[in-house]
Amino acid sequence: MEMHRIISLLTDFGWTDGHVGAMKGAILSINPLCHIVDVAHEIPPHDVIAAAFILGQTYHYFPPGTIHVVVVDPGVGGTRKAMALETEHFFFVAPDNGVLDLVLRREKILGAYELTEAKYFLPVVSQTFHGRDIFGPVAAHLSQGVPAREMGSVLNQDELVRLDIPEPSVDADTLQAQVIHVDRFGNLVTNVSRDMLKMFSPSEHVTIEIGDEELEGFRRSYSEGQQDEIIAVWGSGDFLELSLREKSLSRERGWARGEPVRIRRGA
Amino acid sequence: MEMHRIISLLTDFGWTDGHVGAMKGAILSINPLCHIVDVAHEIPPHDVIAAAFILGQTYHYFPPGTIHVVVVDPGVGGTRKAMALETEHFFFVAPDNGVLDLVLRREKILGAYELTEAKYFLPVVSQTFHGRDIFGPVAAHLSQGVPAREMGSVLNQDELVRLDIPEPSVDADTLQAQVIHVDRFGNLVTNVSRDMLKMFSPSEHVTIEIGDEELEGFRRSYSEGQQDEIIAVWGSGDFLELSLREKSLSRERGWARGEPVRIRRGA
Amino acid sequence: MEMHRIISLLTDFGWTDGHVGAMKGAILSINPLCHIVDVAHEIPPHDVIAAAFILGQTYHYFPPGTIHVVVVDPGVGGTRKAMALETEHFFFVAPDNGVLDLVLRREKILGAYELTEAKYFLPVVSQTFHGRDIFGPVAAHLSQGVPAREMGSVLNQDELVRLDIPEPSVDADTLQAQVIHVDRFGNLVTNVSRDMLKMFSPSEHVTIEIGDEELEGFRRSYSEGQQDEIIAVWGSGDFLELSLREKSLSRERGWARGEPVRIRRGA
Repeated sequence: MEMHRIISLLTDFGWTDGHVGAMKGAILSINPLCHIVDVAHEIPPHDVIAAAFILGQTYHYFPPGTIHVVVVDPGVGGTRKAMALETEHFFFVAPDNGVLDLVLRREKILGAYELTEAKYFLPVVSQTFHGRDIFGPVAAHLSQGVPAREMGSVLNQDELVRLDIPEPSVDADTLQAQVIHVDRFGNLVTNVSRDMLKMFSPSEHVTIEIGDEELEGFRRSYSEGQQDEIIAVWGSGDFLELSLREKSLSRERGWARGEPVRIRRGA
Repeated sequence: MEMHRIISLLTDFGWTDGHVGAMKGAILSINPLCHIVDVAHEIPPHDVIAAAFILGQTYHYFPPGTIHVVVVDPGVGGTRKAMALETEHFFFVAPDNGVLDLVLRREKILGAYELTEAKYFLPVVSQTFHGRDIFGPVAAHLSQGVPAREMGSVLNQDELVRLDIPEPSVDADTLQAQVIHVDRFGNLVTNVSRDMLKMFSPSEHVTIEIGDEELEGFRRSYSEGQQDEIIAVWGSGDFLELSLREKSLSRERGWARGEPVRIRRGA
Repeated sequence: MEMHRIISLLTDFGWTDGHVGAMKGAILSINPLCHIVDVAHEIPPHDVIAAAFILGQTYHYFPPGTIHVVVVDPGVGGTRKAMALETEHFFFVAPDNGVLDLVLRREKILGAYELTEAKYFLPVVSQTFHGRDIFGPVAAHLSQGVPAREMGSVLNQDELVRLDIPEPSVDADTLQAQVIHVDRFGNLVTNVSRDMLKMFSPSEHVTIEIGDEELEGFRRSYSEGQQDEIIAVWGSGDFLELSLREKSLSRERGWARGEPVRIRRGA
């Protein structure tokens, strides 16, 4: 059964180049029976935050034992470490650059290992493409049942690189948040999780401010919005999202990652 | 054998986001042995007509028993129904919003069912992402051999939502048609099927008008066109297409979906 | 085991259209157990050189026996031949238009065959979409163990269409080269292979000129570059690449395919 394990791929390689193909080939040359699943390959180049966020929206939907390979790796060939992370339910193979941050926040970690055992790499390792030469091959060996701890020396979990995702600041009446991701539909994903909203009671009136616009309360779905009305919904990753019905809110108003969002008590 | 069934995915989720990955994860968590096939994920956001057209060009090439999942779903979370459709040869899982229109025109329908049986969904269903929470999981259960009729209540086939694809208007000498799709190469796909052209005899002279240009007769392939000559060919979906050799006709002339095309007897 | 063979797909079909899906369906209808792998589908339309280059970066990483299908086919329906190529380690199915040029340079060829045996095609063959009607089905039959020589008549290897990839010109002190590919990150891939640089001794001072800029020597990885410094590295395909750290060199300077690159002895 090990042989048939699922390997998911999340990269910024794009579909115009040979990187996705070469990495898949390297994996399949080691384990031709593994099941490779494309998660996303058009992450904006070098955008570690976007990759971390998208991984956080997807990895836990996969079956236990899935090996998630994440290669958004602006520091390839430099001093950043390469790592394998084993959690209670999954494996992750990625550069130690923050891309696993949401996993580290949420999952029970069983072990983190620096990828130092060259026998699990391709015979020749380039300085420019570790997805093909290191991360893919290591994932393929994991899919064949090689234990993660064989991949190299133990990493101290407290020293793993974390993302600099801003947390909303809170005072008695206000949550000062921001947009952390814009999805393909132009919806604005904020850094406000459902838990944070517990500072407001369900019966209370809440106002959300963005740019010079104000909206009232939360909706259940995108389709509850009127034409040209901005609405706030709980998105599929359980973060608060702002949306315009059947339009790109990001393009219509020019709002992007970093745009401040204020949530406050009262009308 | 049921376990290994093919599930094809056709969506507007894009490859920059986590939607494709989360839906695949949800499917594989139910049936890790099914065979997921990516058909297209870059359908223009919310473009139900494009999705219906592309489904119509692809579904019948798959082996019998294939489960086609189509998620272009601007009405997610609203009143539109979710459905499973069983035809003589295939299954389809999609919102009831017209995206299955070409299938309904062509296939022998064995049953249409509203997706109401929550035991075939993910345990928690969001209001914003039914691809992951409903359509994917239902497809995974179908791939394990659960009958479509178990998925919910019977839908009246005559009440399924149909597309508003314009049909050409016909008089004695003229077919008044239009462009319904522009493909990646900039070829213009019209709503003229080969059957409609039977109003002209094979020996007859036929003129095609678009914009202020005229062309004569039909060619066998794109490569028969001269440099900068617009030609009419029978496209791979058996609709009449207009094309410029090795160039994007759409971009060169600024013609898009809705552009009128007139086909008339005589020079 | 034959039944489970890997079929890789490299095309310019894009993910917005039905072409990828229809070709996969046609393959799976012949061999539902083969393992289809997406290499790249967003090759610029009709760009045979880009496809040849990307194939050259990927094919040899796949396991022996892999069947590589390459469909970038501006001449579809015209006089160009369709072919199956058998090498010592792989099969290739493609138009005879130069897209296999790098394979022909590097691999030991066991046989080249024109695809003339219609029993290995779809029953109806269009003039516009041979990926679905010919190349895909032929690959599916190869994956079931049909020998390549059954696919049609023998082609003379010396008459196969080759690419017009420029080779650098060399004099005593200078290599006059050019950019042949721009990758997704905006790195410029040149036509200078590592072998060619043997004209310079390792200890020698070498200067690289592009546009009105000059750079000195070679780096080991992208991350060795300073902010806004252009560097030269050996790319993952073993061609010399020019790069700007974490930026698109192509976009920043406006350099594209064809841009001259001069490498000369001395400072």
